[in-house]
Amino acid sequence: MSQENLTISVDAMGGDNSPKVVIEGLALAHQRNPKIRFLVYGDRAKVDAEMAKFPALKDACEIFHTEEFVHNEDKPSHVIRNRATSMFQAIEAVKQGKAQAVVSAGNTGALMAISKLVLKTIQKIHRPAIISIMPHESGRYVMLDLGANTECDGINLAEFALMGSIYAKCVLNIENPRVALMNIGAEEMKGKNEIHVAAHIIKSAHLNLNFIGYIEPHEFPLNKADVVVADGFSGNIALKAIEGTAKLIMHLLKNSIKQSVLAKLGVLFMLGSMKKLKKTMDPRLYNGAMLVGLNGLSVKSHGGADALGFSVAVENAAKLVEKDFVGALRRELENVDLDEISQEAYYEVY
Amino acid sequence: MSQENLTISVDAMGGDNSPKVVIEGLALAHQRNPKIRFLVYGDRAKVDAEMAKFPALKDACEIFHTEEFVHNEDKPSHVIRNRATSMFQAIEAVKQGKAQAVVSAGNTGALMAISKLVLKTIQKIHRPAIISIMPHESGRYVMLDLGANTECDGINLAEFALMGSIYAKCVLNIENPRVALMNIGAEEMKGKNEIHVAAHIIKSAHLNLNFIGYIEPHEFPLNKADVVVADGFSGNIALKAIEGTAKLIMHLLKNSIKQSVLAKLGVLFMLGSMKKLKKTMDPRLYNGAMLVGLNGLSVKSHGGADALGFSVAVENAAKLVEKDFVGALRRELENVDLDEISQEAYYEVY
Repeated sequence: MSQENLTISVDAMGGDNSPKVVIEGLALAHQRNPKIRFLVYGDRAKVDAEMAKFPALKDACEIFHTEEFVHNEDKPSHVIRNRATSMFQAIEAVKQGKAQAVVSAGNTGALMAISKLVLKTIQKIHRPAIISIMPHESGRYVMLDLGANTECDGINLAEFALMGSIYAKCVLNIENPRVALMNIGAEEMKGKNEIHVAAHIIKSAHLNLNFIGYIEPHEFPLNKADVVVADGFSGNIALKAIEGTAKLIMHLLKNSIKQSVLAKLGVLFMLGSMKKLKKTMDPRLYNGAMLVGLNGLSVKSHGGADALGFSVAVENAAKLVEKDFVGALRRELENVDLDEISQEAYYEVY
Repeated sequence: MSQENLTISVDAMGGDNSPKVVIEGLALAHQRNPKIRFLVYGDRAKVDAEMAKFPALKDACEIFHTEEFVHNEDKPSHVIRNRATSMFQAIEAVKQGKAQAVVSAGNTGALMAISKLVLKTIQKIHRPAIISIMPHESGRYVMLDLGANTECDGINLAEFALMGSIYAKCVLNIENPRVALMNIGAEEMKGKNEIHVAAHIIKSAHLNLNFIGYIEPHEFPLNKADVVVADGFSGNIALKAIEGTAKLIMHLLKNSIKQSVLAKLGVLFMLGSMKKLKKTMDPRLYNGAMLVGLNGLSVKSHGGADALGFSVAVENAAKLVEKDFVGALRRELENVDLDEISQEAYYEVY
């Protein structure tokens, strides 16, 4: 895909403090990657007012006025009926081929529901999944599904493995990503049957991926796998446990320092080192969860992300467009019939 | 239950570096709580050699020689057939009423299998669960099931809630523990159906517990709940994600300090504060996972625990005996029929 055609549609009205943060984020992304063109959907007056601060960005943008936008408390069943919102219009632009990816910091449930409705699942993929980038001790890995599917069977997990592998190639630039299924033990028969079925499918389908077996969550930070595959319930549990623990320890560290004058003095000497740690764990650098498995790219920026965070989400979307994630996934699926293989795997396990 | 009758049976041969660590752990526990009597099962010559270092402990112990012991790689199906092991004998002592609790640092699967076989599940409890104590920002909470049951239905979770509540009363000394079901959202219909069924059962059974609804893992550290209830798969996932993340951050912190002379100097000023943090997160202070729901107490010390860790597991077991955990659970169950209530809840949700 030629880079002249790198166009991203943007829901300017999603997230806290929009459209200010969104436009500032686009300005940052534009600075670093001037080739990206943006289709910006939202309240024209408000968008124009913010855009006025960034003349260079303006030339890379086309603004489309929408009267309406999705609210945080809107139910998915409600938002899918209103095509007039900035979110719906931005997603529609991807369907119509005007853009190759959409980025929104709005309501997650709404973005997922409209994206699925409008872009539809890629042929041969049963369910889309939410994927995101996570830090490990010496780099990054990706994890999916982070909550799109509460219940998953073996074939869903096998498809997630394939999508995660291609995603890691595109975004993390890893040649042959190590793919693992999340489980509660390393032995073959530990954990849930659907995980065993998924392992069977992956092994017997000769998918173009480097499957390394099971991984337990305490091993995630140890640079053992580049792609962690889970059902949406336990994937979401793991994600939130990781987030909560990281916050807890930073909180305890701050608290224990506060209680001692000596420690406060010590911190002054440590500011440089602390900055490095903070940077490694900075959630803004991991912003941009994506719904993979659709005919087009739909990226969710965190609702509370700042301009840097939003720009990271935009740049990840751009990387996936440049590397043609969707096309690569379609090509991988061309010559496999996972449905047939999953029947065999099912009988092997049950 | 009178404290004169506080007897704990001990598998001296389980865990790394046994029986040395076990006997040292008993010595520590004995120092702090001289009322506990110990029945010690293992290789008499080796146990005697270690015991010789602690004359005061010796008077509190009765040693029973066993020729055999359970190995780390032994399969549960194998160990339940061999009554001659130190682990089996120690558990048998609880069944025979010679001790009220058993502590072992051996093979977890073996301890669970033999404990279930010998002690049997309490009447009206469908499945035992593994429970442990965890740190939050200003104290401690308990979480179960941590891996005994890969699949759980609503009634299992409701029973875990009851057992967790009584456990928190006994071990954490909390009058009216706040009990929450782990889920991936706070809204009533988020997550899995079995969780909704469990919530229905808990509310309509008028169990003697303070049910506060759902909790997500990033809220665990925020002192919102004293008891977190989960199925054994996702509970184990959450536990290992928490452990892995805590280790990752401490590792990153150390690494970033190592790279700077200034930071190393700063650490000198911070040693006191760091010690506090380290103490809060010290896994030894949370040692002793328990299998609850059996006719007797079975406590698993971490295989790699040192003497302090082992002594904490012993002391937690002693607290549960003193507070009569098993009796309290039986009394709570006397007047409820969860099977009947779960039928109704099932129809409400499905």
